[in-house]
Amino acid sequence: MRTVRTIRELREALRPARAGTIGFVPTMGALHEGHLSLVRAARRANDTVVLSIFVNPTQFTEAADLEAYPRDQARDLRLAEEAGVDVVFAPDAEEMYPAGFATVVSVGGSITETLEAEGRGRGHFDGMATVVAKLLLAVLPDKAYFGAKDAQQAVVVRRLVADLNIPVAIDVCETSREADGLARSSRNVRLGPDERRRAAAIPQALRLVERLAREGETRPAELRTAASRILRENGIEEEYLAFVDPDTLERVPAVDRPTLVAVAARVGGVRLIDNVRLAQGEADR
Amino acid sequence: MRTVRTIRELREALRPARAGTIGFVPTMGALHEGHLSLVRAARRANDTVVLSIFVNPTQFTEAADLEAYPRDQARDLRLAEEAGVDVVFAPDAEEMYPAGFATVVSVGGSITETLEAEGRGRGHFDGMATVVAKLLLAVLPDKAYFGAKDAQQAVVVRRLVADLNIPVAIDVCETSREADGLARSSRNVRLGPDERRRAAAIPQALRLVERLAREGETRPAELRTAASRILRENGIEEEYLAFVDPDTLERVPAVDRPTLVAVAARVGGVRLIDNVRLAQGEADR
Repeated sequence: MRTVRTIRELREALRPARAGTIGFVPTMGALHEGHLSLVRAARRANDTVVLSIFVNPTQFTEAADLEAYPRDQARDLRLAEEAGVDVVFAPDAEEMYPAGFATVVSVGGSITETLEAEGRGRGHFDGMATVVAKLLLAVLPDKAYFGAKDAQQAVVVRRLVADLNIPVAIDVCETSREADGLARSSRNVRLGPDERRRAAAIPQALRLVERLAREGETRPAELRTAASRILRENGIEEEYLAFVDPDTLERVPAVDRPTLVAVAARVGGVRLIDNVRLAQGEADR
Repeated sequence: MRTVRTIRELREALRPARAGTIGFVPTMGALHEGHLSLVRAARRANDTVVLSIFVNPTQFTEAADLEAYPRDQARDLRLAEEAGVDVVFAPDAEEMYPAGFATVVSVGGSITETLEAEGRGRGHFDGMATVVAKLLLAVLPDKAYFGAKDAQQAVVVRRLVADLNIPVAIDVCETSREADGLARSSRNVRLGPDERRRAAAIPQALRLVERLAREGETRPAELRTAASRILRENGIEEEYLAFVDPDTLERVPAVDRPTLVAVAARVGGVRLIDNVRLAQGEADR
């Protein structure tokens, strides 16, 4: 495995790889089983696997969150190598945003005005879209892999890739979960033992929604009430719990169609997100 | 020569060309000798030459200007073929901006807040940067060719290409001029005979600035006064006549350093731009 720090070195390292296919897993480091499952998916389908590690300052809208974001690059590099990564791209902020940098990629419309935009501000998506565009264009992979946990991110990435004609296929892989159902996230390490135990109420709430919807409940308000109760009983502060169209992210009036149920909540000081997709009505379409 | 209308067809057409180098000349059609000189530069340096024709609605801030922009695609295709273009990409607006399109590439800072931004609004550069990013990523050329007449456009394109890591070299070619010095522009055909004659005062004013600066005048105000007089005497309405740094486009306090002299003016109902670069002090740097 080779580790490169500049775009120039990255392009040099990938030149021979262009004869085959390149799979790319962008990350902010703090690698966990979720990232490694993306690496394995990339490994299965491509000749060369690139992983990037960059804690992108421009997508953090809270300085404290950026500060607290876990960083352990020695461990990340070891895990990446074990998982079969060929090239790690780990630039510093100066390489990604040199003096004079002035460009923003901004995805507008319903998909960036809702959910995470409410909690983190629209600026989060400008920062994320800009860095994803930069990373995709630095690597120029055939396929890039994203986790389904960040459902809105995946929708925004698909949109910007289509809109800017970036020549890459986007593969969104199933959320990787702990034994108790908690979605794997780099932020989970910041949970204390009691918080960690209570955090499992988030996937429990989503599973309850899934079961009630399967049993015929289509009213978002009823489903939300049931889910919110579980969160509240576990001392989890709900930020949003929304029933939205999986493509436009607009609120659905009834769960009689494919619906993304997306939740953001704070457990102690840690903000977590998760989601489940309900396939209701899909066969009818 | 092959003409394609969709990005899919374009990529298909260029697949075999990727073994060699691809030169790209983006245009809004209404081809003239200026465009053809770019095609010849691309032809000399590349195995395959691609030319795009797309009157991009999002970079026009005046509906009347978009409406009046000259269009004659049959003639454009003939001229392109004669000049040695291999592939013409001529999409319609629906292909470039399909339903749901939501992404803007925005270059901020001094380079998009001055000169053309004053007359046309910052939105002009968002529209231009977005379509240039899309075209570069649809074609993925080795080199793209732009004319020096649109000096600010070239600065913005260089910025966005560097900032987004778009893998293309930008070649800015000397402004092509008529016998009387008027910079070639698709808008020139809209000048009446008297206006066409008077429009030559624009390059005359720039040449006067060049001569006075060569003779030692370094004060922008003095140089501007001399140039403005020529424009006024020819009934040309000056929009700006600015002495700026060629990279940052910030006003220079004195022409004792490399300086871009940029002018925008209206001759009758037609808005024209031109510029000259003064190399003063370049040897001292």
